[in-house]
Amino acid sequence: MYLENINGPQDLKDFTAEQRKVLAGEMREAMLRRASVHGGHFGPDFGIVEAVIALHTVFDSPKDKFVFDISHQAYPHKMLTGRKDAYLYEEHYNDVSGYTNPEESEHDMFNVGHTSTSISLATGLAKARDLKGDKENIIAIIGDGSMSGGEALEGLDTAGEMDTNLIIIFNDNDMSIAEVHGGMYKGFRELRETKGKSERNLFKAMGLDYRFLADGNDAEAVIAALQEVKDIDHPVVLHIVTQKGKGYKPAEENKEDWHWHVPFEVETGESKVDFTDPYAEQTARTFQRMAEEDEKFIVLSAATPASMGLNRERREKLGRHYLDVGIAEEQAVAMASGLARNGAHPVFGDFSSFFQRTYDQLAQDLCVNNNAATFLVFWASMYGMNDVTHLGFYDIPMMSNIPNLVYLAPTSPEEYQAMLDWAVPQEKYPVAIRVPHAMVGSSSRPVRKSYDELNKYDVVQSGSHVALIGLGGFYNLAEAAAEKLKEQGIDATLINPLFITGQDKELLESLKENHELVVTLEDGVLDGGFGEKIARFYGGDKMKVLNFGLPKKFYDRYDYEALARENHLTAEQVAEDVMKVLG
Amino acid sequence: MYLENINGPQDLKDFTAEQRKVLAGEMREAMLRRASVHGGHFGPDFGIVEAVIALHTVFDSPKDKFVFDISHQAYPHKMLTGRKDAYLYEEHYNDVSGYTNPEESEHDMFNVGHTSTSISLATGLAKARDLKGDKENIIAIIGDGSMSGGEALEGLDTAGEMDTNLIIIFNDNDMSIAEVHGGMYKGFRELRETKGKSERNLFKAMGLDYRFLADGNDAEAVIAALQEVKDIDHPVVLHIVTQKGKGYKPAEENKEDWHWHVPFEVETGESKVDFTDPYAEQTARTFQRMAEEDEKFIVLSAATPASMGLNRERREKLGRHYLDVGIAEEQAVAMASGLARNGAHPVFGDFSSFFQRTYDQLAQDLCVNNNAATFLVFWASMYGMNDVTHLGFYDIPMMSNIPNLVYLAPTSPEEYQAMLDWAVPQEKYPVAIRVPHAMVGSSSRPVRKSYDELNKYDVVQSGSHVALIGLGGFYNLAEAAAEKLKEQGIDATLINPLFITGQDKELLESLKENHELVVTLEDGVLDGGFGEKIARFYGGDKMKVLNFGLPKKFYDRYDYEALARENHLTAEQVAEDVMKVLG
Repeated sequence: MYLENINGPQDLKDFTAEQRKVLAGEMREAMLRRASVHGGHFGPDFGIVEAVIALHTVFDSPKDKFVFDISHQAYPHKMLTGRKDAYLYEEHYNDVSGYTNPEESEHDMFNVGHTSTSISLATGLAKARDLKGDKENIIAIIGDGSMSGGEALEGLDTAGEMDTNLIIIFNDNDMSIAEVHGGMYKGFRELRETKGKSERNLFKAMGLDYRFLADGNDAEAVIAALQEVKDIDHPVVLHIVTQKGKGYKPAEENKEDWHWHVPFEVETGESKVDFTDPYAEQTARTFQRMAEEDEKFIVLSAATPASMGLNRERREKLGRHYLDVGIAEEQAVAMASGLARNGAHPVFGDFSSFFQRTYDQLAQDLCVNNNAATFLVFWASMYGMNDVTHLGFYDIPMMSNIPNLVYLAPTSPEEYQAMLDWAVPQEKYPVAIRVPHAMVGSSSRPVRKSYDELNKYDVVQSGSHVALIGLGGFYNLAEAAAEKLKEQGIDATLINPLFITGQDKELLESLKENHELVVTLEDGVLDGGFGEKIARFYGGDKMKVLNFGLPKKFYDRYDYEALARENHLTAEQVAEDVMKVLG
Repeated sequence: MYLENINGPQDLKDFTAEQRKVLAGEMREAMLRRASVHGGHFGPDFGIVEAVIALHTVFDSPKDKFVFDISHQAYPHKMLTGRKDAYLYEEHYNDVSGYTNPEESEHDMFNVGHTSTSISLATGLAKARDLKGDKENIIAIIGDGSMSGGEALEGLDTAGEMDTNLIIIFNDNDMSIAEVHGGMYKGFRELRETKGKSERNLFKAMGLDYRFLADGNDAEAVIAALQEVKDIDHPVVLHIVTQKGKGYKPAEENKEDWHWHVPFEVETGESKVDFTDPYAEQTARTFQRMAEEDEKFIVLSAATPASMGLNRERREKLGRHYLDVGIAEEQAVAMASGLARNGAHPVFGDFSSFFQRTYDQLAQDLCVNNNAATFLVFWASMYGMNDVTHLGFYDIPMMSNIPNLVYLAPTSPEEYQAMLDWAVPQEKYPVAIRVPHAMVGSSSRPVRKSYDELNKYDVVQSGSHVALIGLGGFYNLAEAAAEKLKEQGIDATLINPLFITGQDKELLESLKENHELVVTLEDGVLDGGFGEKIARFYGGDKMKVLNFGLPKKFYDRYDYEALARENHLTAEQVAEDVMKVLG
């Protein structure tokens, strides 16, 4: 075993080609066992093993600085930089995050998880080095899937004007999360086919020097190529071709399913857990119906069709009613605005965290123009992705303060269905829907068909003294808290606000008659959120207001239950806090 | 006079080459007179006259659809589509906005003002057309300066995969607002020099068909080129070379100063008004000093150096301490994060509205990593740009709810100086400074040197009953309102909060002792803003809270005074509202 004895890059510097080959095998073996138990990113890490061994052989980290794009492919890097135990021993599997993390190691430059940032970050490292008069190599490692993101392209452009050391490893495995999309991929294909000779060369067009290496899974060839660019005095792109998922047959054969994977049986590749988001399934079914009924219907994805339950078969069935723009969220939102302007009925769905790329497009391209596109914001909840780089609960402050946008918060699958059915064909409002997290279940509450009467809340139950406003996925929490209050003799009013982006002023006004406290509950951050607007509304009155939610903070790999308790987000705690204020 | 008789594109369809030449002259003459009185964009419009005449000659607007990028070059288009009076007659100069505007004309597809959106919007129009089975031409018109924006590049990539009519006019005048920056401009230069033959071809690299035309100011040549691409069955880029500011010597000679211009003497080009933002001047002076004292200091700009008072001479003097990334705000913020990570002291300044492109980079690339870069947010005020596309008062909800960011609100030039001097060299926090609008003048109030004690507000004057918290540029309003209250016998507490991103809980708690009302005043939108957090803080208490600011809405070309009065943002009105609550 070589891997067991590697405590840092220095321990593999003198390896022979044969030893590197054995090491690569050991690394894949460890990643396979870990993934089978722990789950996580798979294909990107299996594809880059040899390249990472080569990087740590040729360069001198942490003096030389690596920036891994997204960093979901950083497992091999972590193994070689003092964190092998987290991949070798089950009791240490949770010692490391799924991304590069400066708190774990001096070999990690950034805590990142969104795509297309590595070149931009690396230009900054390089310029800082020059200002200080230092001499290290700066190396960005970016996959072809990430290259379609605007930030990566802006980064290439700046790099193309810099006159200094900057090495961009373009790790081309001809895949994004799903298949790649965009005109640049024709160029990349031609470059692969011509061994780098094609005229369609994005990197040269951006003013950059360019080198090509056909087999990026040959550690010796990568080492030779890296030695040639080491200490180079100008920016250069080294294009290496690798195989996503290499070394594990199911992952080689089905790259999309094995980009990230739940725990599985090593022998067969069969999943040990069967997780499907019921809201994604419902969405996919609805899309199929809409595509059949409405020629103007179209779904946009920014390389995350799985967020909407769209596997390959379903995408193919949608045909011309489906369009993947690649990792390019800005493009997706602006294109949706253009589609709506010319009479189509576009829907763009993505995970909450990735909508962060679209603030300006939502505000300017879409909402200033009041174009009627629909946006589905998935996993917008504290229950979901809990990595600091993928938090899903900042969408309310980001999106709900944009004028003209109608941001809806369904409280059940039935209400989600009604909102989706209303939003897509209508041609009056830009609409976003905050899709509840997977555990928010069915309800028999009557559901409104039209949401044309903006900012009209539902009073589900009329009471007195205290009114609980439970937004979206937290309506159930409000209901449970009302039950607890009933035990204390309080008959609370229970409100489903439906609209995140506006206040039902008439209703809020009327509550003053026989209520002394209004409580808001939202599955998101409090700062800039829904509850604060209610607090502002009652600011000049006697009415008291309690806002439940999360204080703003970058939480990382938190425990859901613990975080909920800490922030009084259980029914018991809400009821207790209410009783305290009622006195 | 031909122009006087043009009420729509149909009126110029049959013009001869000679008539078009005369018309172009008339259009420039009208624009020159209007600009000399009214001010506005100049160079972009003077450069594109012939191309727009050609577009309206060859294509059939509004069936064929034009999307002008930024649309600051849409004056000639407006003249030819029923809005000539707004350029011919002084009494009508204000009838049109400075950008395309669907409310003005069916020939305008979008209300836009930010860069780099046209291709993305056009892909949407084209795809919608195809879904409906229609046949019109979709034409995006984009300048070389805009091409560096990530959204434009994402749009090119999607266009490169579309198999349908989409015409991209690449209007290359070798200028952004200032000079162009980025590696792609080497490629564009080579394309100009080789008449489109160079290998460095960004458009071909993006999978697109490409045509080149050397003289885009020759209407007849443009007409011929457009006729060739009209009704084309696949996306194509037509690269035309034009001269920015063509036809007015001062603008031809000094393109940067004449990108946009205040009213001027036609004969000499001399400005009639002398406007310089004192905060921009102060910023530029400070940068010069910092560059001299700190080798690690660096200023980043995203093609708007004027926002920071950096004219060409000053930029040259800054030397390696200045870097313009082109129109690429995402790159600027991510690069700043990289710079800070590697020990530099970066500052990035831009107008408030353009920071909207950077939400994800601020949150992910920067703040998750807690890298100590400094951001200067200029014209973040209701007093400033009042076009709906350039509103400067949405930065507080957008930025202040991002964890880890320290967003400071200076109340005077002296305080701005202290904050700038503190923020840039420190290496602990990502800091943004909300630069006050030009009219916020000097003050003799004592100024804090260090802002390390986060979220510690200044109590400028201790009183009772009511506390006025005046944020940044609105501190003066709070002070004036306190004066008015004094006349009513109320001795108000006056607070300068300094920090937008946090609450001084100890102070807020202490106010409960002898205050019954806390008033917040912010020069921005209320929704998701500063005041709502104070309202939330006191929600469960007896304390009343009044928040002054603007309700969220897309205001357009508003009158400052009227908007202030409507929203009770005068000292008299604030005092009156306070007295009402105090009863």
